[in-house]
Amino acid sequence: MSRNICIYQEFLTEAHRRQIEETAAETGFTPHFFTLEQFEEAKACLQDSEILYAHSLDLLKAGPKTLRWYCCSYAGVDPYCREPSPFPSPDCLLTNSNGYGVTIAEHVIMVLLMLFRRMPEYEAVVRNRDWSNQLAVRSIYENAFVILGTGNIGQTTAERLRGMGAAKITGLSRSGKGPDCFDEVRPITELDEILPETRTLIMALPGTPETRHILDRRRIGLLPEGAYVVNVGRGSAIDQEALAEALNGGRLGGAALDVMEPEPLPKDDPLWTARNLILTPHVSGNMTLGYTCDVNVEMFCGDLRNYAAGKPLRHLVDRAKGY
Amino acid sequence: MSRNICIYQEFLTEAHRRQIEETAAETGFTPHFFTLEQFEEAKACLQDSEILYAHSLDLLKAGPKTLRWYCCSYAGVDPYCREPSPFPSPDCLLTNSNGYGVTIAEHVIMVLLMLFRRMPEYEAVVRNRDWSNQLAVRSIYENAFVILGTGNIGQTTAERLRGMGAAKITGLSRSGKGPDCFDEVRPITELDEILPETRTLIMALPGTPETRHILDRRRIGLLPEGAYVVNVGRGSAIDQEALAEALNGGRLGGAALDVMEPEPLPKDDPLWTARNLILTPHVSGNMTLGYTCDVNVEMFCGDLRNYAAGKPLRHLVDRAKGY
Repeated sequence: MSRNICIYQEFLTEAHRRQIEETAAETGFTPHFFTLEQFEEAKACLQDSEILYAHSLDLLKAGPKTLRWYCCSYAGVDPYCREPSPFPSPDCLLTNSNGYGVTIAEHVIMVLLMLFRRMPEYEAVVRNRDWSNQLAVRSIYENAFVILGTGNIGQTTAERLRGMGAAKITGLSRSGKGPDCFDEVRPITELDEILPETRTLIMALPGTPETRHILDRRRIGLLPEGAYVVNVGRGSAIDQEALAEALNGGRLGGAALDVMEPEPLPKDDPLWTARNLILTPHVSGNMTLGYTCDVNVEMFCGDLRNYAAGKPLRHLVDRAKGY
Repeated sequence: MSRNICIYQEFLTEAHRRQIEETAAETGFTPHFFTLEQFEEAKACLQDSEILYAHSLDLLKAGPKTLRWYCCSYAGVDPYCREPSPFPSPDCLLTNSNGYGVTIAEHVIMVLLMLFRRMPEYEAVVRNRDWSNQLAVRSIYENAFVILGTGNIGQTTAERLRGMGAAKITGLSRSGKGPDCFDEVRPITELDEILPETRTLIMALPGTPETRHILDRRRIGLLPEGAYVVNVGRGSAIDQEALAEALNGGRLGGAALDVMEPEPLPKDDPLWTARNLILTPHVSGNMTLGYTCDVNVEMFCGDLRNYAAGKPLRHLVDRAKGY
C-alpha cells in the first residue's frame, strides 16, 4: 500500500507541486493536492494518509488515529497546542514553518519608520490637503532596539536594523542565549530591568501560556515616556486595554500591532481609535510573498526527507511547550 | 577689523553653537547667531559679514557685494542657481549640505515598503474597521532597484537596500561612474534602455534644467506594467499630470512623492487623489533628526577651515550647473 500525503494548501504554484512530487517520489510517498474549496475531498483522502501539510484545525480534527505527522504551514501553532487537543492521536508529530522572517521583518521596519517619521500625523495632514511639515522625527540609525523573541523573526529583524545603522540591538530569549546578529541576548526574566531603558520594543513571541500578557499594565508603565511598541507575534502578549490608555494619554509615543486579541478585532474595540497606533489586519506574514512560499515548500520537503529516513524533524514543535 | 560670519538658523543646539564658536576662534572669525524671527537683525549684521550660513533667499539677496561665501544648509540649491541670480556678486561662493542621506534614505525605505506591502489599501481597510487581508505583497528582498542619482542620497539608499537583501541595485549618473554600493552604474543617457526593465525607480536628482521632466509622459510609458516610482529629489523631475494618469489608469503599481511642483501643492491638484500615491509634504530631509543637524554643522565647520586656509571648499556648488 502506498504511503499518502494529504496537501491542503492554496498558495502552491506549479513549480511547488513539482518540487513536492519529486521529493515524494524519491522518498516513497504519493502526494495528493487539494485547494481550500476541496475540504471534503481532502478529508476523504486524509483517512488513508500518514502526513498532512496544511493550516486547518478542522481538517486536522477530522484526521485518522494513524496520522503520523502534521506539517503546519504557519509559524504560530498556538491553536494546535491548546486543550482539548485537536490531534487525532497524542503522538502525532507537529512541525511549523518559519519562512516568515523576511516578510515580517520588512513589515517591522516599515511600521517602525512610519512611527519614527510621524506618518499617522502626516497622513492626516495630507488628507486635509495641508502642508505643515515640521514634526520632530526619529531614526533607526544610531538608535537602540529591544527585540522580545530571538527566533527567525527576531533574527531577521535584527539583521535589517543592523543594515540601517542601529546602534545596539538587544534580544531577549528564555535561555538568555541567541545568535550573533544581536549585540547582546538576555533572559526574559530580566525584562523588568530592561524596560525602563527600552525606547523601542519589538515583540515577536509565540502564543503560549507563559507569554500571555507578558506586556501587562505594570510593564507598560515601566517603559520610558515616548517609547514605541511593535507586536508581530501574538495579540495575547499585550494587555490591549492598558496599551490603548497609554497611547491615548500620550505616555507612549506610538505602537504598531499586526496581531491582536481577538481577530478580527470587534467593531467597537478601543484599539481602532487609539492615538498613534498603526493597525494592520494580521498581514505581516502573508504568504503572497513568493519567497515566503518557496521557503515553506522547501522546509516541508526537507523534513519529508528527514521523516522518510527516520531522522529527527528539523522544525518539530514541542506540543506541550507550544513552540 | 574682525571677520564676521552671519548665521541665520533655527536648528542649532547649544553644542552646535559652541562647535561653531570654537572653529571660528581657531580660524580668526567671529560668528553672530540669529533665529528665524530675527531677520532684520541678521540683515544688519550681514552688511559687515564675509560669510553667511543660512537657508534664505531673501537674506542672501539683501547681502553686500563683499559677501564671499554663502553656505546653504540645504542640499537642494536650485533656487539659488536661477536667473536673475539672488547673489549680490557673481563671484560669491556657494556650498550646499549633504547630511540628508540617512534621513532621506529611511524615508525611501519606508515608502517603498508601504507601496510593496499595500499600505494605502490596508489603511483604508482599517479605517472601515474591516479585516480583509489577502492582498499580494512584494519585497525588497531579492528584488532589483534603479536609483536615478548617485549622490549622497542615492548611495545611502543603496546601502540600506543592500542591507535588506536587494538582488541588484543599478545607479544612474551623468558620468556613468559611481561608488561600489551600486552593483552597476550606468550613464543617464541610457535611461530609455533601462526603464523597460525597471520595476522600482527611485529618483534623487538635483533640480537643474537638465533634470526637468526627465521622467516625462513618454518615459513613464516605457516603465513596465505595475512599476513603482519614488521621488525624493525635486518635483520638477516628473511630469505630474502624466504620472497621475498612469496611476489612476492602473498602469503603474504606485508612487511616493515627497517633492512636487509647486510646493505646497494647490488644493485642487489631481495628485491629492491619485490612486496608490503616497504624498508627504517635503519632509524626507527634515532637520529635526539630530544626526542630520550634527552633520550639517560639521560640514560648515570643515569648510570654514578650508576657507580660512585658502583651500578649495569641499561642498562647492557650480552655480552654472546647479549642483
